[in-house]
Amino acid sequence: MANDASTVFDVVILGGGSGGYAAALRASQLGLDVALIEKDKVGGTCLHNGCIPTKALLHAGEIADQARESAQFGINATFEGVDIAGVHKYKDGVISGLYKGLQGLIALRKITYVAGAGRLTSPTTVEVNGERYEGRHIILATGSVPKSLPGLEIDGDRVITSDHALVLDRIPKSAVVLGGGVIGVEFASAWKSFGVDVTIVEALPHLVPVEDENSSKLLERAFRKRGIKFELGSRFSGVEYTQDGIRVSLENGKQVEAELLLVAVGRGPVSQGLGYEEAGVAMDRGYILVDEYMQTSVPTISAVGDLVPTLQLAHVGFAEGILVAERLAGLRPVPIDYDGVPRVTYCHPEVASVGITEEKAKELYGADKVVTLKYNLGGNGKSKILKTQGEIKLVQVRDGAVVGVHMVGDRMGEQVGEAQLIYNWEALPSEVAQLVHAHPTQNEALGEAHLALAGKPLHAHD
Amino acid sequence: MANDASTVFDVVILGGGSGGYAAALRASQLGLDVALIEKDKVGGTCLHNGCIPTKALLHAGEIADQARESAQFGINATFEGVDIAGVHKYKDGVISGLYKGLQGLIALRKITYVAGAGRLTSPTTVEVNGERYEGRHIILATGSVPKSLPGLEIDGDRVITSDHALVLDRIPKSAVVLGGGVIGVEFASAWKSFGVDVTIVEALPHLVPVEDENSSKLLERAFRKRGIKFELGSRFSGVEYTQDGIRVSLENGKQVEAELLLVAVGRGPVSQGLGYEEAGVAMDRGYILVDEYMQTSVPTISAVGDLVPTLQLAHVGFAEGILVAERLAGLRPVPIDYDGVPRVTYCHPEVASVGITEEKAKELYGADKVVTLKYNLGGNGKSKILKTQGEIKLVQVRDGAVVGVHMVGDRMGEQVGEAQLIYNWEALPSEVAQLVHAHPTQNEALGEAHLALAGKPLHAHD
Repeated sequence: MANDASTVFDVVILGGGSGGYAAALRASQLGLDVALIEKDKVGGTCLHNGCIPTKALLHAGEIADQARESAQFGINATFEGVDIAGVHKYKDGVISGLYKGLQGLIALRKITYVAGAGRLTSPTTVEVNGERYEGRHIILATGSVPKSLPGLEIDGDRVITSDHALVLDRIPKSAVVLGGGVIGVEFASAWKSFGVDVTIVEALPHLVPVEDENSSKLLERAFRKRGIKFELGSRFSGVEYTQDGIRVSLENGKQVEAELLLVAVGRGPVSQGLGYEEAGVAMDRGYILVDEYMQTSVPTISAVGDLVPTLQLAHVGFAEGILVAERLAGLRPVPIDYDGVPRVTYCHPEVASVGITEEKAKELYGADKVVTLKYNLGGNGKSKILKTQGEIKLVQVRDGAVVGVHMVGDRMGEQVGEAQLIYNWEALPSEVAQLVHAHPTQNEALGEAHLALAGKPLHAHD
Repeated sequence: MANDASTVFDVVILGGGSGGYAAALRASQLGLDVALIEKDKVGGTCLHNGCIPTKALLHAGEIADQARESAQFGINATFEGVDIAGVHKYKDGVISGLYKGLQGLIALRKITYVAGAGRLTSPTTVEVNGERYEGRHIILATGSVPKSLPGLEIDGDRVITSDHALVLDRIPKSAVVLGGGVIGVEFASAWKSFGVDVTIVEALPHLVPVEDENSSKLLERAFRKRGIKFELGSRFSGVEYTQDGIRVSLENGKQVEAELLLVAVGRGPVSQGLGYEEAGVAMDRGYILVDEYMQTSVPTISAVGDLVPTLQLAHVGFAEGILVAERLAGLRPVPIDYDGVPRVTYCHPEVASVGITEEKAKELYGADKVVTLKYNLGGNGKSKILKTQGEIKLVQVRDGAVVGVHMVGDRMGEQVGEAQLIYNWEALPSEVAQLVHAHPTQNEALGEAHLALAGKPLHAHD
């Protein structure tokens, strides 16, 4: 990995998370000489501290719930508890398998991998460990870290972030989760499955507040049934230590005590002290500003992933990384339609969506032009078999295409694949309705919803 | 439900299973007067003796397996056994909920429901309980029953069919399953999860022999790991009773002993003694012959569902019933492309497909015109989290559309929704590849497979 000072790479990528490594893989595949610089482990937040480990915790939680509820299915099994060391071993096994696979891909593609913390020193140079890496192009992909609130100090013990929660060596008896967005509800869900007494505090009026309100309400109903408590429309005002935990105060005067506080108020970009401003890269509140081709204000510099103010999702990072690689290789990639990117929150039950909410559709098209349809999973055989409840809500422009699909229910996140094709290919309900869906799957609920929206409901009332 | 002798219905439907009731619901919705005749329970085989109860057994099996394997996920739970009465209670609860829903839909749509065994007495008349129901059109939808082999007598105790297996009041210690098709492998899978020592006997060289050979091989590998035994390419020659079970002999000289024999050699049409031949309806080996609009050789008579020689699937019955109803109402429905109908086998792991096999594609397009791609779920994060293995295999006409999607893996049946849109909308790999799939889902494996087939693999080798 020594760097010949005379080498000029086609692309130097600063950060080896989802956006950075996807750019590296695609660029090298397209014949570009790539240097990929990563200060920790390739795979970044998603693989090591984000998507993958949280979904492993959630699946362990599913196993626990199913053992607890096994009698409902005629299975005699006794749930005895969570072996947190065992959960970590399982989770780490998943990560290490994927990590090895990713390292193998990087190695195969002949990417120059540089371990170390890089710093932009000019519009075409990154310095790492005292060495300079020169590139015709630079891609910034330094990602994000958990945010906190002003005056709220993370101690890593009683007041923690998701980074700490993922390696916590005990199951707390109780927890306050500050933030009812994706990260907050996923941890709340997994912890409840592990037996933790959980209270979510959310300043906005709903859990998962960026989702269609119907999905938020369904999730709230499901969480209430599970005994997950929440304080909505409640702003945090302070936290103090008690003898063996914390006490959270809300602006409305309520107080909640628990063993620990998980601060899940979002993730902020890692962009300070890395030379970005000095190189003239335009920024806004720490995010790097980019055009629809992910190019920054400096022509030689692009940025992707959580560092830019688009959806903070690993698959968005992949797509942005690929887009930049293809642009730099001289292809003509199409800008990303972010509304067409599927979103999944992997709590129990899952929340998934693609396209726009009813509210947004009414803003865009006018209230009288928007048609919605809800299909209840109570009529869906496979969902009944799984004993899950939920709905599919479709948002349609009258006599036009389906512009939003919003789903709640266990395992419904997997339906977002068909849903995104429907959205992205601008399907009419009738075009989906005439196709046959497999019985008995949860997938057929998507078919039934489109049958109903097309005016020919099968297993649904008119 | 008394019938005024002077009433002439628009449609009289004989049989209230998937095909019959879908026709009734759609026809009544389109303003036709409908009589629906059913000798047992509306919902038919699928709801009461087929799809739904088997999937409930399989899910109970999943709960059992997960309890057994809980330590792998860090969950301490002890599997103590299967409470078969509890399993039936769960299964019957699922059925009765759906049954009530269906009865409600039928009632709401003002369909004349006739309980009783009907018989065709003219091209426009069905007789039930001594009363005549006259229709401008008749739809035959009398379904299917389990078949046996010549000389193989079903005693309902040691030699049983799926009908008996679904209500069996004990967990056998061991079983021979005769037939490695969908029904056979589903029971084998559920029983193995319940602790039964299972041996499948299949005359053809592979399990699920109508699937792409790759899927069959993957299923065989998975079943072998699970300890499900099978004898492939082995023809049954006879069964005899032993002191406490049966002994099955194969033509190759092998013998297998077990507590019982499940005969799962397919289902045959219910078409004898019902007046079909007398009315002049053309038949072949008991199946009613129909054109692509489901019309029989008698212009006033249509037939749908398992009674006709198309795919024996509930959702095919739905589609055929809807098609006939729309035709009779004067709409112009499009004939069904049976290759575009998704197929799911709900064993552990699941097998799912849509479109055609590699073999069929080579026949149709020439071996040099067919491109295939396999994406291993080992590279898919969510599949690793679920600890399932499998593959997605795509079959493409060179430089053209994807004409086959073949998948194996737990829960992969739910991916068949996106897969069927890809097939039915004749998508090019590049058209799917440019769309973003959610990470970490099993669904993204479908995206990765199309990325790779389009020549731009992300998490896969070139």
